[in-house]
Amino acid sequence: MNMSQKKNALSITREENFSAWYQEVILKADLAELSDVRGCMVIKPYGFAIWENIKNILDNTFKELGHTNAYFPLFIPVDLFEKEAEHVAGFAKEMAVVTHHRLEYVDGKLVPSGKLETPYVVRPTSELIIGKSFSKWIKSYRDLPLLINQWCNVVRWEMRPRMFLRTAEFLWQEGHTAHETAEQAIEETIRMHEVYKWFICDVLQLFAIPGKKPEYDKFAGAIDTYTVEAMMQDGKALQAATSHFLGQNFAKATNIKYQDRDGNMQYVYTSSWGLSTRIIGAMIMSHSDDNGLNLPSQVAPYHAVIIPIIKDSNNTSSIMEYCNSIKSALSNKFRVLIDNNDDSPQNKKWKYVRKGVPFICEIGIKEVESNTVFFIKRSDDLKQLKLNKEEFINTFDSLLKNHDATLKNKHENICKSKLVNDITTFNELQEYFSNNNGFARVKWSGSNENLDKLNDLSLSIRCIPTEQTDTNGKCILTGQNTIQEIIVAKSY
Amino acid sequence: MNMSQKKNALSITREENFSAWYQEVILKADLAELSDVRGCMVIKPYGFAIWENIKNILDNTFKELGHTNAYFPLFIPVDLFEKEAEHVAGFAKEMAVVTHHRLEYVDGKLVPSGKLETPYVVRPTSELIIGKSFSKWIKSYRDLPLLINQWCNVVRWEMRPRMFLRTAEFLWQEGHTAHETAEQAIEETIRMHEVYKWFICDVLQLFAIPGKKPEYDKFAGAIDTYTVEAMMQDGKALQAATSHFLGQNFAKATNIKYQDRDGNMQYVYTSSWGLSTRIIGAMIMSHSDDNGLNLPSQVAPYHAVIIPIIKDSNNTSSIMEYCNSIKSALSNKFRVLIDNNDDSPQNKKWKYVRKGVPFICEIGIKEVESNTVFFIKRSDDLKQLKLNKEEFINTFDSLLKNHDATLKNKHENICKSKLVNDITTFNELQEYFSNNNGFARVKWSGSNENLDKLNDLSLSIRCIPTEQTDTNGKCILTGQNTIQEIIVAKSY
Repeated sequence: MNMSQKKNALSITREENFSAWYQEVILKADLAELSDVRGCMVIKPYGFAIWENIKNILDNTFKELGHTNAYFPLFIPVDLFEKEAEHVAGFAKEMAVVTHHRLEYVDGKLVPSGKLETPYVVRPTSELIIGKSFSKWIKSYRDLPLLINQWCNVVRWEMRPRMFLRTAEFLWQEGHTAHETAEQAIEETIRMHEVYKWFICDVLQLFAIPGKKPEYDKFAGAIDTYTVEAMMQDGKALQAATSHFLGQNFAKATNIKYQDRDGNMQYVYTSSWGLSTRIIGAMIMSHSDDNGLNLPSQVAPYHAVIIPIIKDSNNTSSIMEYCNSIKSALSNKFRVLIDNNDDSPQNKKWKYVRKGVPFICEIGIKEVESNTVFFIKRSDDLKQLKLNKEEFINTFDSLLKNHDATLKNKHENICKSKLVNDITTFNELQEYFSNNNGFARVKWSGSNENLDKLNDLSLSIRCIPTEQTDTNGKCILTGQNTIQEIIVAKSY
Repeated sequence: MNMSQKKNALSITREENFSAWYQEVILKADLAELSDVRGCMVIKPYGFAIWENIKNILDNTFKELGHTNAYFPLFIPVDLFEKEAEHVAGFAKEMAVVTHHRLEYVDGKLVPSGKLETPYVVRPTSELIIGKSFSKWIKSYRDLPLLINQWCNVVRWEMRPRMFLRTAEFLWQEGHTAHETAEQAIEETIRMHEVYKWFICDVLQLFAIPGKKPEYDKFAGAIDTYTVEAMMQDGKALQAATSHFLGQNFAKATNIKYQDRDGNMQYVYTSSWGLSTRIIGAMIMSHSDDNGLNLPSQVAPYHAVIIPIIKDSNNTSSIMEYCNSIKSALSNKFRVLIDNNDDSPQNKKWKYVRKGVPFICEIGIKEVESNTVFFIKRSDDLKQLKLNKEEFINTFDSLLKNHDATLKNKHENICKSKLVNDITTFNELQEYFSNNNGFARVKWSGSNENLDKLNDLSLSIRCIPTEQTDTNGKCILTGQNTIQEIIVAKSY
């Protein structure tokens, strides 16, 4: 059977309905589900295993760069939250507020009771609560730089949830650092921005353009926000990770002062940077296809699954022995699963196709007798391959690298066809986006004038790319002469 | 200098004020601090590194036993929470209630706004919210057993916080499993109880008595609660980890049914089990001394710290090279820190004594020239030792085992002197606890009669130990004949 002629493993294609397809990929791969709690999702074991892999890779990297983990309170007193005005403006409309500390029965119904004097908000981000601790921990320049990271849940009240992309509660890491000088804090911000770029492009194999956010779209309270803007298969942008240079704004709000090398008291300069479970949504919309999920090897819960094909029960033990020998040869370095549940081999195969296991091996008596491994390369349109067993085992590392390269190339090809560099006027922009989605690299003077024209087309400035061509041109919004280029796109 | 004659590294001794001493151990080891958020603590990097080690050991063990991690919502709708009446009774008095989903300025003050139709409670434990998911995931006996674990934060409103022991928010893991039969769920409950016993006694080297909770003190909604009751140095008990057989109570509350092997629909049987950051408090109160923290090796952030002693700067490079050679020889298997900050060697030594690093090495030119390592064994009253460098490196593993054995023995000696087996009447009990604290192993008939007599002495039944002597005796509360033994103690 030529599998490429088979019907797809999902009922909806990307072409038919990208958004419904996205939901189906998640459900059929058993990654997550919406919960009864409005706006909140449940991350199921297979989805959470991906997050655990993401966490491990980033956590090791952060630690190698000198950061240590700590844990700060979930709750922020409203009067502390008030201290940074821009911050309030950015978050106040979407937060969970705790007002009571017990429940009690009134007329047979459980109702809130024990009203708090000061309400608490559930952290949407932790600059202020961590800043309060920093103000106690930092006394002198000897205590700097202070490099802290936290893995935790945060809440931003969200009424139109989409799994992984937009949920009221999500998981993330938030790095918070304090430095003697602005230069050092900027250096740290850019260093972590580079870590994200590496992780997103080289580990997750996404296509992304790094750059700065325009002034009006910075993190609430930041001086500069760096972003990695990833392009999805449908040409829309997804803000994959941000890093903020906060100047002395939060140091002043939470009073983080240190004695400098000359004995004078100074405010520190801080940075913060975060990456969330949203990245799993970005990965899905970049690599998955009409057969379901595709996973970059480093975060895949399983690198290979082995399906025993037993037609004659006399062969059971020799086939199982052969499967076990492959698994044990690989499992020192790789994550391998043998699925010997009593479901049919065909059902199992399609299950792991939908779950995006990079290599799906089918082992029957033929393979045992010929000392071979028959396997499907998930990323390469389910290409069927056969290798000598020893070769399969010995080259498995390069098979995985090759799988990653296939994912990267496929996605890059899609994205590069949606990168537009030749738009010079607003009319051309409007025309392009009336039929297409993609990243338009256009000129912008930096003024906020006419930004609503973009908004009216559901477009936004995704970033000011780090790599500029430095050519002269005219701002698409004002016609002014400018050399600055931006990326304009629709976004998630 | 004979260090045993030196003044202690803390200002308060256990003898003088156990509770103030406990706080000082935490502060001087830089483990944690209370936050501005009432009842909540900040876990500082050194304290959090201990938790990360605890997490890794337990997480690996859970996974080896077939459990997978997942993540469920922080919020529980009040109407879902209401479904299990005993559960409500157990938790309703101490929960954070979210009633609004934004803040807005009214007369220049930020106030809660956007009132929710149904309030949410912040999870104090997740049986109900996870049960809701299980009810979707489980269809047939083929889906069982379902073995899930979650690492997360929980909130139980606590007005008299004590770091690690009692805080409004704490971190924990909660295992939740579903099974076909009561027997299988009980087996799982006991298996995880055994895992906790192993972790608490053999990894953390605590002294503890495993057993069942009496009926009246079970987890709210459980059929049986198994507990590991650890004894602190002051003779008080600390409930270190609990495992609950929940019968079909939560299955009924959240409608978790499966089709059994005969095609009939049945409710599943569930278990849940948890261990929290509280265990760090237990560890502190078991192993620390008047010089500060002591840490069992497997969870210690550093196994050894190396302090270079440089009196003549001509020796700097040879001393540093020597220190580095020790570190690099060990660091494949062990966590080693070289502290070359510009603080004095003396200050550094006492810093690491207070932080409970198992081995503190002081390396000067004498050690370099004699090819030796001079070191302090933290657990053995700062005993000073000297070994040939190669011997130190090659036997480091047994040095650590020896360190753990020292901790265990010391603590066991204290605890065994506070284990009382010869109390047969309530008067004797009263007399013992008027001058002492400890674990009294006494007879109890199992009736709730006269329990308030224990309560009046601030005593409680900690557990019905798994190991019973099966001798006849009389209940200390009712005088009835009984063979059942219990542990009575004051508790944290």
